[in-house]
Amino acid sequence: MKIIETVKELRNELKPHRQGTIGFVPTMGYLHQGHLSLVERAKQECDTVVMSIFVNPLQFGPNEDLDRYPRDLERDAALAEAAGVDYLFHPSVSEMYPTEILTQVHVEKVTERLCGASRPGHFAGVTTVVTKLFHIVEPQRAYFGMKDAQQVAVIEQMVTDLHFPVTIVPCPTVREADGLALSSRNVYLSPEEREQALILNQSLREAKEKWVQGCFSHADEITEYVRKRIQTKPLADIDYVETLSYPRLEPLGERMGERMIVAVAVRFGKTRLIDNVLLDGRGEETCSVR
Amino acid sequence: MKIIETVKELRNELKPHRQGTIGFVPTMGYLHQGHLSLVERAKQECDTVVMSIFVNPLQFGPNEDLDRYPRDLERDAALAEAAGVDYLFHPSVSEMYPTEILTQVHVEKVTERLCGASRPGHFAGVTTVVTKLFHIVEPQRAYFGMKDAQQVAVIEQMVTDLHFPVTIVPCPTVREADGLALSSRNVYLSPEEREQALILNQSLREAKEKWVQGCFSHADEITEYVRKRIQTKPLADIDYVETLSYPRLEPLGERMGERMIVAVAVRFGKTRLIDNVLLDGRGEETCSVR
Repeated sequence: MKIIETVKELRNELKPHRQGTIGFVPTMGYLHQGHLSLVERAKQECDTVVMSIFVNPLQFGPNEDLDRYPRDLERDAALAEAAGVDYLFHPSVSEMYPTEILTQVHVEKVTERLCGASRPGHFAGVTTVVTKLFHIVEPQRAYFGMKDAQQVAVIEQMVTDLHFPVTIVPCPTVREADGLALSSRNVYLSPEEREQALILNQSLREAKEKWVQGCFSHADEITEYVRKRIQTKPLADIDYVETLSYPRLEPLGERMGERMIVAVAVRFGKTRLIDNVLLDGRGEETCSVR
Repeated sequence: MKIIETVKELRNELKPHRQGTIGFVPTMGYLHQGHLSLVERAKQECDTVVMSIFVNPLQFGPNEDLDRYPRDLERDAALAEAAGVDYLFHPSVSEMYPTEILTQVHVEKVTERLCGASRPGHFAGVTTVVTKLFHIVEPQRAYFGMKDAQQVAVIEQMVTDLHFPVTIVPCPTVREADGLALSSRNVYLSPEEREQALILNQSLREAKEKWVQGCFSHADEITEYVRKRIQTKPLADIDYVETLSYPRLEPLGERMGERMIVAVAVRFGKTRLIDNVLLDGRGEETCSVR
């Protein structure tokens, strides 16, 4: 595996590989099994796998955790190499933003709710840096985890709208054995917070089960169910709980959608965690607990 | 020359040419010698030349001339073929915008003045469609005429900021023998308007000459000179006259810039014409008329 720090060097290195398929895994580093599952999928489908590690300042708000976001290149490089990454692109901020950036890529509507509402400017930062990375790497396929379901929806919308010559491959959320979704931010959790944080996945799984059983008559009921379950944990400070259409992420209110997402963001102390579940492919069971 | 109407077909056709250099000339059609000079330059520098003809609704305001913009594909195809275009990409509006577009590329600051001020939303329409076309054609080089100097500045800013793997090649404005800058919109001018429209190039040439001779002490003096000269023509209805830094397009007021542009937009009846001159590489002569 080669570690590369400049755009020019990466483009030169990738030239001979352009005959084959280039797969791309963009990350902010501090790798966990979620990231590595994306590499694994890319290895299966592509000839060359490029991973980027770049903590992108543009997608952090002024009061967010840019400075304390965890970084460990040495550990990341070892994990990436073991997973089979061919090129690890690790540019500096000045390499990615050599001059004042005046251009931004904006996606409307899909960015309005959930993390788009809680983190103003976040998705413009994401779509802008992903555009830059796509132009630098020029992959045929790019891999994103479904823990960031809104990010996947936003990037798929952007790729369609702007005719990017790249296929977005959404991959399943990877979880600890007890159900906690893997996140680089999990390291911040105290043991007590870590324990209570399990309510995210638990409440979402319960909601899906009840939805499959036909226990809910509309989207807002699902939201209320999950909200109440999370509120049983005293350390949980809810940022949002929403049930929306997927991937357009429009509110449903007292309707049901064909394909829905229940998405949550919850603070435990200073640490903000997100998780979600897709409600699609409804089963045939009836509700046993109503 | 092949005329191609779908994204998929164009991508398939271009695949075998990607080993060589692909040059791209985006146009809105109704071709004149200005467009053909771009093709000529592209032929010199590239193995394959792609021209697009697409009257992009996104860059026209609600009260602008989208519907009356002149179109003549048969004539354009003959001219393009004679000039040596290899692929003429002529998509429909629904091919370029198959679904509601939620994504836009925005460039700040460089878009604030001149046509950016007169035509709100115009440059977001331009940068968005150029992004789409670059993603469809994937050229190494793209050719733009300097008559649209702000467009060149905006696109160069976008390409730098977003790391597009393409080189922008600005090409000189092509003029009629009497100095009128070629434009598809010139066909709308009455003989009298056509005659008076010569004041654009005349006043700009005079301004450059006087600037070379050191007759002006700051940018606003240049603006005033050109404005007064244009106002001698009764049919000329000035939209703007400005002298700005180039390519950042910032006002200079009572200063001079190292590199400046004097840019004008003037209506003759319903027809809006633009023209400009760059003030750089100052000569050594002194003013003889002061």
